Amino acid sequence: MNPIITLTTDFGTRDGFVAQMKGVILGLNPDARLIDVTHDIEPFSVTSGALVLKGISRAFPAGTIHVAVVDPGVGGERRGMVLKAGDHYYVGPDNGLFSLVRAGEQSWHAREIENPQIVRADPHPTFHGRDVFAPVAAHLSTGLRIESMGPRLLDPVTLPIASPRIIDRGIEGCVIHIDRFGNLTSNIEAGMLTRGVRNVALGDVKIPRMSRFFGEVESDEPVALINSFGFLEIAVNRGNAAERFGAAEGAQVVVEFA
Amino acid sequence: MNPIITLTTDFGTRDGFVAQMKGVILGLNPDARLIDVTHDIEPFSVTSGALVLKGISRAFPAGTIHVAVVDPGVGGERRGMVLKAGDHYYVGPDNGLFSLVRAGEQSWHAREIENPQIVRADPHPTFHGRDVFAPVAAHLSTGLRIESMGPRLLDPVTLPIASPRIIDRGIEGCVIHIDRFGNLTSNIEAGMLTRGVRNVALGDVKIPRMSRFFGEVESDEPVALINSFGFLEIAVNRGNAAERFGAAEGAQVVVEFA
Amino acid sequence: MNPIITLTTDFGTRDGFVAQMKGVILGLNPDARLIDVTHDIEPFSVTSGALVLKGISRAFPAGTIHVAVVDPGVGGERRGMVLKAGDHYYVGPDNGLFSLVRAGEQSWHAREIENPQIVRADPHPTFHGRDVFAPVAAHLSTGLRIESMGPRLLDPVTLPIASPRIIDRGIEGCVIHIDRFGNLTSNIEAGMLTRGVRNVALGDVKIPRMSRFFGEVESDEPVALINSFGFLEIAVNRGNAAERFGAAEGAQVVVEFA
Repeated sequence: MNPIITLTTDFGTRDGFVAQMKGVILGLNPDARLIDVTHDIEPFSVTSGALVLKGISRAFPAGTIHVAVVDPGVGGERRGMVLKAGDHYYVGPDNGLFSLVRAGEQSWHAREIENPQIVRADPHPTFHGRDVFAPVAAHLSTGLRIESMGPRLLDPVTLPIASPRIIDRGIEGCVIHIDRFGNLTSNIEAGMLTRGVRNVALGDVKIPRMSRFFGEVESDEPVALINSFGFLEIAVNRGNAAERFGAAEGAQVVVEFA
Repeated sequence: MNPIITLTTDFGTRDGFVAQMKGVILGLNPDARLIDVTHDIEPFSVTSGALVLKGISRAFPAGTIHVAVVDPGVGGERRGMVLKAGDHYYVGPDNGLFSLVRAGEQSWHAREIENPQIVRADPHPTFHGRDVFAPVAAHLSTGLRIESMGPRLLDPVTLPIASPRIIDRGIEGCVIHIDRFGNLTSNIEAGMLTRGVRNVALGDVKIPRMSRFFGEVESDEPVALINSFGFLEIAVNRGNAAERFGAAEGAQVVVEFA
Repeated sequence: MNPIITLTTDFGTRDGFVAQMKGVILGLNPDARLIDVTHDIEPFSVTSGALVLKGISRAFPAGTIHVAVVDPGVGGERRGMVLKAGDHYYVGPDNGLFSLVRAGEQSWHAREIENPQIVRADPHPTFHGRDVFAPVAAHLSTGLRIESMGPRLLDPVTLPIASPRIIDRGIEGCVIHIDRFGNLTSNIEAGMLTRGVRNVALGDVKIPRMSRFFGEVESDEPVALINSFGFLEIAVNRGNAAERFGAAEGAQVVVEFA
């Protein structure tokens, strides 16, 4: 088993929260390979965390354990969970954070974290990342079976993510993620573009064709393409589309078929 | 010996300074396990560095080596030091950065870094992180004894950190750290709350009881609790207390006993 | 062979792009040691990437593989390349990103990345970092020879970096990098200061002598020194020179000899 453990949180990098999780993991499994995904998820944005997890999972080898903590409900009623989906494991709060990776898999198996022997004694009610999820991931990485974590969890929380809708001669969707470059990821997946595209519109901005990469249009021109996550993206070649068009998450994206 | 080396600096992540430290360490000990704590300490803020180090240390296993560099006096008269406190090691400038981890331990042992064989030849006077502290940490991780680093250091610099004071029917302290979520950590430790708490006040904001976790109050309501570092913290459930209340480091926090 | 792989990109840390590169590398070589240099290169700034690479390389041991991706031309005509310069390897786009590390070496050997067996099947046209450069670095780290990557590349792109010029009784250069502390790195190398320095000027600001470290002047005073990269730097002791003097990249720096 390949003990890669990735970490995805909204903890930021200023305060040492993530380092504490790593210290706990290495105390239980000194051979764990720790890989940061991001700690800059917008605070409390479970949806952003879910999108990033879906985006990165398939780049990792089978057996990878993904710990993710975007957890505004920490300490309260929300359950902790371990999920096996495809050949990856996920550990974190049951608040929808794993609903997109789960949706992409034909079968999955989830357990509620209940076994007191796999968490730190007297877990702090505001820091389950360190006291619950980190040790659970470490135990998984040393071979502890998911079945020993707690009872089956059959009804994990599912995020309400907007789906695109079919309209007359096209598809209407919206921006669901803006990346570091200001590129706008829509919720329109490549597989939905079943016919030739006449144009793509972001509000008033009309883009007359699909491209394969940014440099197919001139510098500072808008470009529409299928991004590396498999979604329709609107960008500006060597520029920042979010700033240029004042676009935020939720902005309307319309594809018109030929 | 477990060769975990953590790194805590105010170097930021833009310029490659930290990578140079890591390159030097791996050149001396290819098996070292390098863990970033944070490189986003406010530039020159020795106090913030000291607080973060105290916060993260106990999550790491015995034998961990913590290199920390917040070092406005680099190149000048300030000494370099290696500290053993509890079962952890600390390497960095003698400017108070380790005074909080030292204060938490019954016994400690410190050495001034003087042995020229354990640092890089001709260390650059503005980058002891790379040329002095990184190689010292690497040598420690390969088993070199602290006694060989240099003469005993009996009078390390101690930071002047404000202590809370006992007042009529309560305790008066102040905010000493604001985390990424805008949560306000005070200098009032859990052990000081020896009697029932009637209320907690941040300036004009009165919080009528202590909670265990954020979700015990409604969203956007202020909440007081003991945080994962063991200090009284004022937060806003699913919000940002620093922004909401315009609170900065030094803001007064008063606990009134029942 | 020491399988250290460093990563330098303009991908930021929010979106999980870098984590995908790491997942791909670890899938091909589970023993690779991954070291982040920075992911905060200004988007599309090939020059900043080239400067950081030059700055960090010599701190790493022989055999280190540096993957760098600042790649506005991804998907288009620009070539992918593997460079051996000195005893280090470099993998990334052929757009000048490696021209400074190359310039520092007496001999180098470059190959264009063409062998389809060393990249991911059907590489995405906007993410060669994940689908081309990460797998190439992983294969290098497992011992695949650079000669098997593709044909020789004899004319790699060279960045047009401004050189300082000799003027009457001095040298005129400019600021080429501003670091996290606001320190201003000029393009004037230590070796160019062949005579005693009478003063150093940043626009109207005259600094009357060279220092060795920041603390040789009073707090908040400007200071000129040779920085840890070997370049003339203008800083403010315990302050931020870029903010204080409103200096940007390109600002004129003049050295007057005695």
